[in-house]
Amino acid sequence: MLSDTRIHELAQVELKEPVLIQGLPGLGYVGKVAVDYFIEKLKPVKMAELYSSYLLFPDGNLGINISEDGTYSLPRYEFYGYGEKDPNVILLTGDAQPSVTGQYEVASIVLDFAQRFGCKAVYTMGGYGTRSGNDVGAVYAVVGEAVLGERLKKMGAKLAKGGAVTGAAGVILGIGRQRSLTCAGLLGATTGAYPDLEAARAVIQMLTGLVSIPVDLKELDTEIEDMRKKMERFRHAEVEESKEGEEKPEEGKDRYIT
Amino acid sequence: MLSDTRIHELAQVELKEPVLIQGLPGLGYVGKVAVDYFIEKLKPVKMAELYSSYLLFPDGNLGINISEDGTYSLPRYEFYGYGEKDPNVILLTGDAQPSVTGQYEVASIVLDFAQRFGCKAVYTMGGYGTRSGNDVGAVYAVVGEAVLGERLKKMGAKLAKGGAVTGAAGVILGIGRQRSLTCAGLLGATTGAYPDLEAARAVIQMLTGLVSIPVDLKELDTEIEDMRKKMERFRHAEVEESKEGEEKPEEGKDRYIT
Amino acid sequence: MLSDTRIHELAQVELKEPVLIQGLPGLGYVGKVAVDYFIEKLKPVKMAELYSSYLLFPDGNLGINISEDGTYSLPRYEFYGYGEKDPNVILLTGDAQPSVTGQYEVASIVLDFAQRFGCKAVYTMGGYGTRSGNDVGAVYAVVGEAVLGERLKKMGAKLAKGGAVTGAAGVILGIGRQRSLTCAGLLGATTGAYPDLEAARAVIQMLTGLVSIPVDLKELDTEIEDMRKKMERFRHAEVEESKEGEEKPEEGKDRYIT
Amino acid sequence: MLSDTRIHELAQVELKEPVLIQGLPGLGYVGKVAVDYFIEKLKPVKMAELYSSYLLFPDGNLGINISEDGTYSLPRYEFYGYGEKDPNVILLTGDAQPSVTGQYEVASIVLDFAQRFGCKAVYTMGGYGTRSGNDVGAVYAVVGEAVLGERLKKMGAKLAKGGAVTGAAGVILGIGRQRSLTCAGLLGATTGAYPDLEAARAVIQMLTGLVSIPVDLKELDTEIEDMRKKMERFRHAEVEESKEGEEKPEEGKDRYIT
Repeated sequence: MLSDTRIHELAQVELKEPVLIQGLPGLGYVGKVAVDYFIEKLKPVKMAELYSSYLLFPDGNLGINISEDGTYSLPRYEFYGYGEKDPNVILLTGDAQPSVTGQYEVASIVLDFAQRFGCKAVYTMGGYGTRSGNDVGAVYAVVGEAVLGERLKKMGAKLAKGGAVTGAAGVILGIGRQRSLTCAGLLGATTGAYPDLEAARAVIQMLTGLVSIPVDLKELDTEIEDMRKKMERFRHAEVEESKEGEEKPEEGKDRYIT
Repeated sequence: MLSDTRIHELAQVELKEPVLIQGLPGLGYVGKVAVDYFIEKLKPVKMAELYSSYLLFPDGNLGINISEDGTYSLPRYEFYGYGEKDPNVILLTGDAQPSVTGQYEVASIVLDFAQRFGCKAVYTMGGYGTRSGNDVGAVYAVVGEAVLGERLKKMGAKLAKGGAVTGAAGVILGIGRQRSLTCAGLLGATTGAYPDLEAARAVIQMLTGLVSIPVDLKELDTEIEDMRKKMERFRHAEVEESKEGEEKPEEGKDRYIT
Repeated sequence: MLSDTRIHELAQVELKEPVLIQGLPGLGYVGKVAVDYFIEKLKPVKMAELYSSYLLFPDGNLGINISEDGTYSLPRYEFYGYGEKDPNVILLTGDAQPSVTGQYEVASIVLDFAQRFGCKAVYTMGGYGTRSGNDVGAVYAVVGEAVLGERLKKMGAKLAKGGAVTGAAGVILGIGRQRSLTCAGLLGATTGAYPDLEAARAVIQMLTGLVSIPVDLKELDTEIEDMRKKMERFRHAEVEESKEGEEKPEEGKDRYIT
Repeated sequence: MLSDTRIHELAQVELKEPVLIQGLPGLGYVGKVAVDYFIEKLKPVKMAELYSSYLLFPDGNLGINISEDGTYSLPRYEFYGYGEKDPNVILLTGDAQPSVTGQYEVASIVLDFAQRFGCKAVYTMGGYGTRSGNDVGAVYAVVGEAVLGERLKKMGAKLAKGGAVTGAAGVILGIGRQRSLTCAGLLGATTGAYPDLEAARAVIQMLTGLVSIPVDLKELDTEIEDMRKKMERFRHAEVEESKEGEEKPEEGKDRYIT
């Protein structure tokens, strides 16, 4: 088999012991929304892309994602580096999760990359399934060391007690702990609404406090509210469009092609 | 694991910066019909076959395909080379698609082969699922660079906007773009009719114009019409046959055997 | 990944350009019954066993098969060598088929082994699915070269015309042909009865004629009849047993355990 | 692919030709309960952990298991060494079974580890599916050599006669036999009750007698009874809890998170 996972480096960024913050598509899109918020606020430099034959679409197929302008790319992870204030940060996002077979390999290569810059701490953000709407806004934590759990509890997090974190948000914490990195997963309680902005906000606040990420949260509430409105408008527009006739430019949108 | 994908070279063909044109079995059989048309018209030389443990039957099994004379072969790709006029062309077809696990490996080895001849452009042909019969005849394009999209739009193509191209028609474009090749996928709108000759004709015309393939399209309409008639006659004959008694030579046809 | 397929050699047998004859579990158990018949008649020497992590149970699980005396073994292929008369023969049987992923690797390693002895011809035996009971007794052939097909037709075989041979009976023929070996698959028409002794008898007769295997077929009919009777008695006994009470020694039979 | 299975050594233990005793999660949890009993009684030293990308959750996913204090770990095997009396013992337990693809690799690496200490015998404990409650308490044996089967029969075991042992309890016996180790699987008849303490007790008694493990069984009955009571109380408590209101600390328990 050919080597299956590769990092393409795009830009050199000077980083000092950055913390690695990962947010990938998953339950309620919590992790992905949260990391996108940090990327928007910190305006970090895009350092690298990771490609892997293990990065599949959610339906288990492999192919290319098409953009609005007809260009495309293979599923990938993206690394952003922020080195202007302390702590330095590597933000990891992407448009796919590895298949079960590739989880170890992809997580290992991600950590190899981050550790080259002296990374000593890994935080993943994701969703925590709950049936109760009352629980939304809560953040559940899993931690590499119990002492970090205590600290998070003081900050208002709940500790997950049993169960499992499946997928990339879990596996990278598992391997990170084996490598003696400081590790925690912050999981926003979500009923699975897509995307769950409430849950993302709770995770953003908790992580900003824990890591002292230099972003201003003053306007977070307003911004989350704006995102919600935009999304509603967008959905509304989509419904309108789908009532219209043929030959409209949106015809090539959101379909799977083979 | 043993090395899983191998190219068997059959003949040396002198080629100068050929464009690679791929048409494999898929939705509506559009890509396969189109590439077979070019092979019939250009009369290229069969250069090589590719075998891979990842080339599976559509049902996910592995085995041999049986010909009309009782001989057989493993699923394979076939490379044809055409070097008589400009541009030189490598035509790639086959009777199977790689499994998800093998898509990266097979696409990489195909590109390695084409690049040995100086190949700088890759075009894939396939089907684009549509529910509306009105859309048949349209060609949707995905492109490595937006500028190529603009050119294709002027030629009458529509740009795919969102969604995904799964399978071999997509993955090779993804890897081709990483290798800085000129890349486009031309996808004929099809309701999935099998084989969709209308969709194939549209793709043939578009690609012939884009790449200046030296084939005469004057008789394309008549030829497509002829193919349709032959197929109808063929299907008719099959129905007749299946009404006849036992011991007829067609008994060994089209069954799966283990 | 660790190396997954290994041959354990058990005895040295002097063989001169042996033909390889393969019969594995499959449709109607035709190939397995036929090869077991040859093993019983030729009394060949057990030369080797092949073990592979790809040799799975029919349900896709992996484990050990338990014998009547409580001993067990991993799923395996068995090679028997017969060098007393011409032609020399390697008989290959086993209690499992490789998974799709392992078909190429296992078939390649089997051929490597046989070719070490100068093997130039490969014959596989199997079942050919038919819905018509009238067709049972017919042998369908797939062949590496059309000329061998002509010869088999004169001997009474029918040529398979289209369709596919899936599984180990097909893949080894595919790779054998790539290695320029003489190859044929003899497939006894079967409705899938288990085991289909009628179909096995037809295949045994055809292959014995084709390869001139030095077995006496005079009593084949009687022996097949005996096997049928034994099996019926066996089944009868099983039904009786299952009516009896607890604590009987057969309690540990034919169950899957984890 | 990166190397997928690794052993992390935690402590040096002096061992002389230890017997390897394996109990993993499976049918009725019989093997796991039994090995945990030996670990509790012998107070062995934790020697090593084995991690593998093949150690999946029972649902086929990969991730981390969360403990009561919010810490977590990847699925793993654990090796315990006991060298104080004869025979020396390596106890192997864990919280997952390898996927089919990884069974050979994981079992091979486990045996490599044990053989470094001179291990010459492997015993696995597990469940044996039975529909009859009357059969619970019986131990079925599979053995590498028939003579060991005779000995076990005299001790009251039944021989499994046919069928198969799937999963890790079977594969390691298969590979152990190939390496000429003394091998046996002791399978407690179970209707699949979870966990089946009755079946575990029978297996504990049989193995203690066979291997002369230096544990005192005098209080086994009382202890099994205590475990049963604790479990019932635990289940009772769980039911109570699930009737209570929100915000209770048990909220983070036993859920799957992504």
